[in-house]
Amino acid sequence: MNINELGEFGLIDRLAKKIPTRNPSTLKGIGDDAAVVAPSEMCRLLTTDMLLEGIHFDLTYAPLKHLGYKAAMVNFSDIYAMNGFPKQMVVSLGISQRFSVEHVEELYAGLLLACERHGVDLAGGDTSASLTGLTIGVSALGECEPGRVVYRSGAKPTDLICITGSLGSAYMGLLLLEREKKVFEANPNATPQLAGYEQIIERYLKPEANRDAILTLREADVTPTAMVDISDGLASDMLQICRQSGVGAHLYLDKIPIAKQCMDMAEEMSFDAVTAALNGGEDYELLFTIPLSLHGRVKDLGPVAVIGHVVEAEKGALLIPPNGAPVRLQAQGFR
Amino acid sequence: MNINELGEFGLIDRLAKKIPTRNPSTLKGIGDDAAVVAPSEMCRLLTTDMLLEGIHFDLTYAPLKHLGYKAAMVNFSDIYAMNGFPKQMVVSLGISQRFSVEHVEELYAGLLLACERHGVDLAGGDTSASLTGLTIGVSALGECEPGRVVYRSGAKPTDLICITGSLGSAYMGLLLLEREKKVFEANPNATPQLAGYEQIIERYLKPEANRDAILTLREADVTPTAMVDISDGLASDMLQICRQSGVGAHLYLDKIPIAKQCMDMAEEMSFDAVTAALNGGEDYELLFTIPLSLHGRVKDLGPVAVIGHVVEAEKGALLIPPNGAPVRLQAQGFR
Repeated sequence: MNINELGEFGLIDRLAKKIPTRNPSTLKGIGDDAAVVAPSEMCRLLTTDMLLEGIHFDLTYAPLKHLGYKAAMVNFSDIYAMNGFPKQMVVSLGISQRFSVEHVEELYAGLLLACERHGVDLAGGDTSASLTGLTIGVSALGECEPGRVVYRSGAKPTDLICITGSLGSAYMGLLLLEREKKVFEANPNATPQLAGYEQIIERYLKPEANRDAILTLREADVTPTAMVDISDGLASDMLQICRQSGVGAHLYLDKIPIAKQCMDMAEEMSFDAVTAALNGGEDYELLFTIPLSLHGRVKDLGPVAVIGHVVEAEKGALLIPPNGAPVRLQAQGFR
Repeated sequence: MNINELGEFGLIDRLAKKIPTRNPSTLKGIGDDAAVVAPSEMCRLLTTDMLLEGIHFDLTYAPLKHLGYKAAMVNFSDIYAMNGFPKQMVVSLGISQRFSVEHVEELYAGLLLACERHGVDLAGGDTSASLTGLTIGVSALGECEPGRVVYRSGAKPTDLICITGSLGSAYMGLLLLEREKKVFEANPNATPQLAGYEQIIERYLKPEANRDAILTLREADVTPTAMVDISDGLASDMLQICRQSGVGAHLYLDKIPIAKQCMDMAEEMSFDAVTAALNGGEDYELLFTIPLSLHGRVKDLGPVAVIGHVVEAEKGALLIPPNGAPVRLQAQGFR
């Protein structure tokens, strides 16, 4: 169905019908000038991220539902990286002529699935025409107990540096999708060779913000001294903590967790998997520091690996290979 | 200066240096994964709006500083329309190659001027490349005492319908700018004929959210029963209140406030000024309803005009001319 048949108001009505509110703190969701959130003794956390067609995603291989899911997740991940929980979000869409009502519903299905899994209310938004591509803006509001908010600035020398999950997969997933896109462009009858690489593809197309890690750390009564989510890559995000905490960091190359499919694809492409982990980004894992005294509480937590320790600033931010000379960490963007 | 010379991080650093925080509730502004806002006994109000090049603005005549100002104002206006005050905002920018560092600084100067005048902290954001035009996403967080939040749904039959300021000017300003753009395109040596029309041009390019009206209503101890800001036009926005309150409305055509410059330009263009007021939109005035018993408290408030009254739903939403038959209000978008 053409969006013009429904009009902006008709489209919003149609979408809004399917949108529940689940948090008692959401006093008013979609349908007024602003969402209304109940007073609370919690700190509020506010973050925003915009995904632009051609820059952040390619509709040749990114399904709209996954894209909606990802747009929500990158925001939730920012809230978790403050040690909080997302509760409300608002969405702005810019939609060009080539999208139908069904396309927008697909996108919303992804946004709503993300909300459902992470206990978030889609509480408002703004939908308008776009002359060019698709634009998705999401802002999330979260909450955290006042004493538990974790900044990038609290790391201290001797702290342990920890990472959840594994790194590099999202970037290798992107490289694989780009390779298969080129094959398809050269020969539209070719079948994409993606079997066995579901983990890295999903990591890129439909990442999961690491709510479980935050719950696990809370159960273990561990509050990190500093935390950031891996959106730009381990090197760049580690340097954010170093800079804002006024410290250095020594990371051990052989401790960096890399998934088997990521390693396999890197080998197949003659690409260095460690480079994907350091500079690939978009893994949405959590990088955090804890006092050395809490080592016992994290060493057996499933999804957490200790990969290095915080040092004085003058000792530098280094990646230390098992054999060979240490290398300075350098910030590098995704593209 | 080319943005690539600075890179995303360099650009953000350069912009962030000029950004103060002024509200004690802003515990952390720019520089972490999310902004942090202190706990409070106030309700929080969250809204978002996205401005897209070619749809919401034309850089041929919209200066970047005005555009930044407007992007903030449309969000602040939504917060005032809930009877609250904006306190924090976050900004997402998509910037194409043709913009320099200085362009982005101009845009930020407008965003920051809006923040300064309305007591808001620019508390975070996200800047990325765009393949196409300029995209500006703003989300604002505001606050309001729990008992004072005003929804669209509270209007009751016999309530008076009030409007702040005057309507139609933004749309006549847009028509004038479009006319002069066409003249300029036909003859690049032509001088735009804008003198005497500063009010309508400013209304369109650099609107002001009506904070003063909210302050005035509070001083007069008036809490509206329903409120909305005029973004789509009086007809459309009145119908929002009617629909959500389950009521009708009778508006008196000769009571609708229209500024002299708007009238003059309408006459010059043989356009109906009332149509601009009803369907033009983007005036960012406040449309609200109050119990009849409070008439005495609002009748002498400078910026407020009583333009009609709320009736039972079955009596319809009508515009009543001084002579002649009533006309049904119809929702019409801006473009």
